Amino acid sequence: MRKQRKEKNLGVTPRSQDFSKWYLDVIDAAELADYGPVRGTMIIRPYGYAIWEFIQSWLDAKFKETGHSNMYFPQLIPYSFIEKEASHVEGFSPELALVTVGGGKELEESLVLRPTSETIVNHMFAQWIQSYRDLPLLVNQWANVTRWEMRTRPFVRTLEFLWQEGHTAHCTPEEAEEEAMKMIHVYHSFAVEEAAMPVVVGRKSRAETFAGAVCTYTIEAMMGDRRALQAGTSHNLGQNFARAFGTQYTDEKGELQFVWQTSWGMSTRMVGGIIMTHGDDTGLLLPPRVAPIQVVVVPIWKKDEQKEGVMAAASRVVGALKSIGIRVKLDATEQKTPGWKFNFWEMKGVPIRIEIGPRDVAESVVVVARRDMPGKEGKEFGVPMEEGPLQEYVMKKLEEIQQSLLERATTFRESNILDVKSYEELKGAIAEGKWARGPWAGTDADEAQVKDETGATIRCFPFEQPPHSHVCLKTSKHASEVAIFAKSY
Amino acid sequence: MRKQRKEKNLGVTPRSQDFSKWYLDVIDAAELADYGPVRGTMIIRPYGYAIWEFIQSWLDAKFKETGHSNMYFPQLIPYSFIEKEASHVEGFSPELALVTVGGGKELEESLVLRPTSETIVNHMFAQWIQSYRDLPLLVNQWANVTRWEMRTRPFVRTLEFLWQEGHTAHCTPEEAEEEAMKMIHVYHSFAVEEAAMPVVVGRKSRAETFAGAVCTYTIEAMMGDRRALQAGTSHNLGQNFARAFGTQYTDEKGELQFVWQTSWGMSTRMVGGIIMTHGDDTGLLLPPRVAPIQVVVVPIWKKDEQKEGVMAAASRVVGALKSIGIRVKLDATEQKTPGWKFNFWEMKGVPIRIEIGPRDVAESVVVVARRDMPGKEGKEFGVPMEEGPLQEYVMKKLEEIQQSLLERATTFRESNILDVKSYEELKGAIAEGKWARGPWAGTDADEAQVKDETGATIRCFPFEQPPHSHVCLKTSKHASEVAIFAKSY
Repeated sequence: MRKQRKEKNLGVTPRSQDFSKWYLDVIDAAELADYGPVRGTMIIRPYGYAIWEFIQSWLDAKFKETGHSNMYFPQLIPYSFIEKEASHVEGFSPELALVTVGGGKELEESLVLRPTSETIVNHMFAQWIQSYRDLPLLVNQWANVTRWEMRTRPFVRTLEFLWQEGHTAHCTPEEAEEEAMKMIHVYHSFAVEEAAMPVVVGRKSRAETFAGAVCTYTIEAMMGDRRALQAGTSHNLGQNFARAFGTQYTDEKGELQFVWQTSWGMSTRMVGGIIMTHGDDTGLLLPPRVAPIQVVVVPIWKKDEQKEGVMAAASRVVGALKSIGIRVKLDATEQKTPGWKFNFWEMKGVPIRIEIGPRDVAESVVVVARRDMPGKEGKEFGVPMEEGPLQEYVMKKLEEIQQSLLERATTFRESNILDVKSYEELKGAIAEGKWARGPWAGTDADEAQVKDETGATIRCFPFEQPPHSHVCLKTSKHASEVAIFAKSY
Repeated sequence: MRKQRKEKNLGVTPRSQDFSKWYLDVIDAAELADYGPVRGTMIIRPYGYAIWEFIQSWLDAKFKETGHSNMYFPQLIPYSFIEKEASHVEGFSPELALVTVGGGKELEESLVLRPTSETIVNHMFAQWIQSYRDLPLLVNQWANVTRWEMRTRPFVRTLEFLWQEGHTAHCTPEEAEEEAMKMIHVYHSFAVEEAAMPVVVGRKSRAETFAGAVCTYTIEAMMGDRRALQAGTSHNLGQNFARAFGTQYTDEKGELQFVWQTSWGMSTRMVGGIIMTHGDDTGLLLPPRVAPIQVVVVPIWKKDEQKEGVMAAASRVVGALKSIGIRVKLDATEQKTPGWKFNFWEMKGVPIRIEIGPRDVAESVVVVARRDMPGKEGKEFGVPMEEGPLQEYVMKKLEEIQQSLLERATTFRESNILDVKSYEELKGAIAEGKWARGPWAGTDADEAQVKDETGATIRCFPFEQPPHSHVCLKTSKHASEVAIFAKSY
């Protein structure tokens, strides 16, 4: 398959034809990732990893600005730790990978590869925290985690994935709540401003809350097939782990108190979210801010004597854009035709292509083509090649594309959320493949019934709520909130 | 122990008294790391992790400059992979950690937590590489690795550690050799220029070569107790892994060839190297370039009415230094005395302390104290507080300290390497705790005998060789090279 595509320059399966196949084709053709030898594992290839590096550097700067320090906890956790917090073990025990042999010997106690680190973090926090002066304790780690998932999909759900996990401890429940909210808003900002993903931010239902948390906040994104993707979560852990691990501090009155905690994470899943939000029939389409290559320059010539002038102009253009921090690539290989290159870089999702031919050189102009507008509409001829004006033009165009992708995704999302008043309407919306938003005061059992009958779950109670109170779509009881239901990844 | 030290502000065990205990005390007191719940694992705490982050960012930029892309390979490797390259399995099988249970079920094949990734890298390279046009393939990953070590020590040797591992594939043996050399020189530059560690760069003996490599290059550092620390290695792998995994390409003539490969790594061990190179009886001493905090500002006042003026001046000084990128901390807490703070930040190894008292404010000056020169000698009074001159002064002083630490370590190293001509002289040098440098043409068995009888191993054949040929110190055969012998971590 791969060899065939490579040799024949076959495109990807059109998204409109088979979303799932399109997704896997794009990942393969754009060399974002590959399958590892162990079922459900993934190799993140350089082009995919570069997107992750951008996510990392943006979030890392934001975490530091908000007072968090990076550190590193071991991935090997004694099995007994996982059992200490009752709902945590219930949630995670089916997904654990166990190390039972080390250095050729059976271990006395099996070790868990961290599925998340609340337990080991609390084991250490309990030793580091003595007094209120040690609080708040605000840390983060960039790490791999392992969850033995049955149904896997590159980036979206893999046995091992990369993420960051923040862990904090505070003196009061108010501070912990403020921290949990602050971090979900950091994720929200990243999604909207950088990834151009108009996520819905809200609170998880009890059934969907993180195993061990009091409350989970989430950002939920709508993929191109209208399934929801949970793209980042922030948990108010209350004192659940503190009580299980004895994480206590002495307050100003000299009394021992349990700390209040949060944890929050965003993972390589976000890369899958970006692919499935913006991609189209042609392949990948990357928002300029997260694109490893923002501009590709394709020099074009027919006669040998044209080459030198075109190449010199192309190099000047590349230099001019690089000098203002634009991530630009010159594709000067002579083994491929310009047409092949156009298709290739479109499939790779590069937001802007600059073409430079002999006539352009003569007129000191370039041709600029937008990836997000196919054909003539997105192509502008006669853009001045002069350094200053070109830099300004490209910067503006990148910003335009960024905004346009966000608007397009927002319109798509809005037109695919239906407000529903009854269970029948909800079923109809879900059957159509849309999201349903309606008043909800049901029990966990009611929620489970909806899932059984429709395949949809409560994605969140959005922070943005309609002003009035309502009647629950299922129980007809008074509902103080609306919930969003959708099928999800 | 820890609580006692914290409460009573006890210092660390003097280095001159007990090096090993000093090292562990410094790591604990300076909050660089802590022990994990699983034997031999380590938590890297924020202050230690910040040093690692500096190493990461410097190396990462250098790797990218030299054409490498980051990516990520799964840590779970089928056991059968490890067995494919004969000397690799021999070297690594005693140290493996095995995952045997996943999702509650016994796995059919045990999975290895990567001790290093050559096997899985080759499994994938064999799929990605088709023609000479795909070469050179130059990648790197930042990852955790697991080696089931018996005798562990924080940073220096832990069951799990963090590192980067570069992996490259080339068309010719010359290119692979050039790459392996290029990368050991990157490590060499980092050690000398940034960490102020005057490492010896050279080639490993056959017995000490990486399991599966043709040739291993190394940088060897001398710690404060004169034991050697291998601080980074770069391997020319030849075609060993390519043959074991069938990593082939079609050359320009259309013929199938095996690729030539390299791999190279530097790890969190480097943090241990920095501690043990520069630290002294007082505690940690960090070279300015790698110090998370380069300057600490301590405001001093006695009467309440002095506070405002002193604090305002301290804030201005902090702002002035921050604005030119100096990593500066203001220690304005009122719970500790200035004396306590002086001791604390000296123990933490901060290169420069700035003291500001009411008289300094009146005269518009500050006091600057160097961590590397105790007492009066390292203290300068009346340094102008004015922004420009102060910035210039501090920048120059940081550079001076950096150079001075390198010179001091170089002098120490030179005075502790003895040139030896006979095995007796070698034994004498090692017994004195020094390094021995002498002509060597012995066999693996000769080398093993030296190790058995003296505890020293060949650290490397240094690239810098004396001009003449020699007589082997052990076999009296002609020796074309000198080797360095030392006890090591």
